[in-house]
Amino acid sequence: MSEPRSFRIGLLGRGTVGGAFAELLPQRAAHIEAITGMRPEITGVLRRSEGDFDQILSDADLVVEVMGGIEPARDYVLRAMRAGKHVVTANKQLLSQHGEELWACAREQGVQLRFEAAVAGVVPVIRVLGESLAGAELDRIHGIVNGTTNYILSEMARTGCSYEDALADAQRLGYAEADPSDDVNGKDAAAKMAIIARLAFDTPVHLDQVVYEGIEQITADDMEYAHELGLGLKLLGSAERVDGGLSVRVHPAFLYGSHPLASVGGPFNAVTIESQAITEITLSGPGAGGPQTASAVLGDVISAMIPPASTPEATQQLEIIQDVESAFYLHMEVADRPGVLAQVAQILGLQGASVKSVVQKGLGEKARLVMVVHPLLESKFYAAVDLIAGLDFMRSRPRAIRVIEEEFSG
Amino acid sequence: MSEPRSFRIGLLGRGTVGGAFAELLPQRAAHIEAITGMRPEITGVLRRSEGDFDQILSDADLVVEVMGGIEPARDYVLRAMRAGKHVVTANKQLLSQHGEELWACAREQGVQLRFEAAVAGVVPVIRVLGESLAGAELDRIHGIVNGTTNYILSEMARTGCSYEDALADAQRLGYAEADPSDDVNGKDAAAKMAIIARLAFDTPVHLDQVVYEGIEQITADDMEYAHELGLGLKLLGSAERVDGGLSVRVHPAFLYGSHPLASVGGPFNAVTIESQAITEITLSGPGAGGPQTASAVLGDVISAMIPPASTPEATQQLEIIQDVESAFYLHMEVADRPGVLAQVAQILGLQGASVKSVVQKGLGEKARLVMVVHPLLESKFYAAVDLIAGLDFMRSRPRAIRVIEEEFSG
Repeated sequence: MSEPRSFRIGLLGRGTVGGAFAELLPQRAAHIEAITGMRPEITGVLRRSEGDFDQILSDADLVVEVMGGIEPARDYVLRAMRAGKHVVTANKQLLSQHGEELWACAREQGVQLRFEAAVAGVVPVIRVLGESLAGAELDRIHGIVNGTTNYILSEMARTGCSYEDALADAQRLGYAEADPSDDVNGKDAAAKMAIIARLAFDTPVHLDQVVYEGIEQITADDMEYAHELGLGLKLLGSAERVDGGLSVRVHPAFLYGSHPLASVGGPFNAVTIESQAITEITLSGPGAGGPQTASAVLGDVISAMIPPASTPEATQQLEIIQDVESAFYLHMEVADRPGVLAQVAQILGLQGASVKSVVQKGLGEKARLVMVVHPLLESKFYAAVDLIAGLDFMRSRPRAIRVIEEEFSG
Repeated sequence: MSEPRSFRIGLLGRGTVGGAFAELLPQRAAHIEAITGMRPEITGVLRRSEGDFDQILSDADLVVEVMGGIEPARDYVLRAMRAGKHVVTANKQLLSQHGEELWACAREQGVQLRFEAAVAGVVPVIRVLGESLAGAELDRIHGIVNGTTNYILSEMARTGCSYEDALADAQRLGYAEADPSDDVNGKDAAAKMAIIARLAFDTPVHLDQVVYEGIEQITADDMEYAHELGLGLKLLGSAERVDGGLSVRVHPAFLYGSHPLASVGGPFNAVTIESQAITEITLSGPGAGGPQTASAVLGDVISAMIPPASTPEATQQLEIIQDVESAFYLHMEVADRPGVLAQVAQILGLQGASVKSVVQKGLGEKARLVMVVHPLLESKFYAAVDLIAGLDFMRSRPRAIRVIEEEFSG
């Protein structure tokens, strides 16, 4: 018997994901050889301190980029594709900022650029959007695409602890980095939603076009009210058609218990894809972790070994819409005196906001007014919040969180 | 500008799915042309009363088989592939009984045989197992893969109604057919689990090797006890490695509320894929319906238009295991007198069954004893049940339902 053909992989980056991939590949090599007829092996590794990119490239059939950051990752990925090599990347920042350039290069060169691991780890949202649903007309995507913040919010809901305590807990368990800024401020989720929206709606979406808010302002108090109202609080990414355009955003939002994302707890990720024809599909699983992300990379490598697929050129140029309608939860610390509710309600009414439910709670220094308002244009709602913030009985700035109103059958 | 190349589709069958596909394709043709460079069109339709297969075949680049049944579907699919045409099929009975022959033919001919629509409708479990997770070592799959029975069980849980009333309701709403036998007796789910198990574990699995039970015996009483114990009742498919072999089965089972499948309600389907490296992924969505299934067919058609993928030859020959360990709920109608619990417990103990919880309920003619026992080999458990059934204080045959014990973080 002759030796099977080798399939040579150049690995750029050897951090958590790169290390896990280097460990996983030899374990699965015999199985991969059985299904592809080729034996995969890592023929070169580029680390900060060692390795020569040109040498690694010339020795490889495919390049795995798990170094992160924009440069030199962008340059390496482009050079690899121009040399006719397939690329598998986990780099969400790169794709959300330079995706169009990279996908165009892949199409021109006739190579594959695969990136399942860039979004929601091993949850196969990229393949499902790009392949299973390539022919579907989608209406909306909702996603929990950052495991760090979902862990923090889950812990706050479960234990009633503060944001700071939950974050410290997440750091201790390795679910949050020492500098968690890009996770907790929503930027990481925004990059992922940009990529998801690009695939789902065939429209170029740059990270800068994604409106995002983080979870730093969420309090144990919000969680308590949410519980009373039967709601769960998530850092939610959305991408949806609005008035002939497209809205892509990330913000904290309450979900009713029946929403398929409401029960996604801990560091898990989940994405709900809605379309009139198919109603909705939900995909969930671990959104991060070295072995999980390495598994997503490996699935892409195998697909590149068997047959090609490519991200088609964007066929739509939908406008990116920033101001959309949302329902809101509004939390106000107020002085405990007559007329408070009437004045708040009057301002909301003038802006067209209709109140769905009201809870008044506490006395004296602890008096609080919590409302849920029906969907209205966010700009109008925030104008009302600015006016309410100026009322003399407000003891602090009102806090607003979006509410997802849909009830689901599934 | 020259006319784009046409991509010709022969449609075999024009029932619910075929009709929905014929309606969907022209709506999405422009979009598909934009992403593939080819314009898809249906160039021939075979119905019971019209159409000539050979003519349809010679006019087609790809054949969509949605006629159902074994023959002549099997013959047509084989002849299409031997003529070098790709095939997309939604035929679970065909694949669960003749899959190996069909997949071998596809490999030999170098054509694609795609079948996402055969399992769980638009829930992309086939693509995810065959492509995203092609390199992963999987441990277990759990699935709710029959929408009719999930609707019936959901209604029984929600309203407390009888099985017969819920079935009549499902028939009125179109979730169950006039003859619902293959849905309610578990055979439809068994066919789907055979296909899932084949892909997940690289082992040939024939429908005849799948152990299955249906939901005809489930009573409103079971639902009430389940509710008291904090459990949900589902018709659950499982495929898992057991002692170096593979167990594939379908049966009613209780799930704890925290299990990702517990909250899947109504006619939805969902599949949980477990692996040590990735923990677990859950996919859920509508499991049936013309437009939904047609959307799954269309995703496969587009994949065939862009690039090839094939089901690799089975590389494993795992033994199919029938007797596995399960936890059970055991429901007994007993005479209300001393010593009943002791005798039942003694028999269970002799068979190695350890009792997790006991509920005694009712008096006199209505006395009931309900137990949950920890996992043990099913053959041992059923031997105990046979012995218990022979005790003189039993007022009817004991009823047993499996319990899924795992708690999930997700």
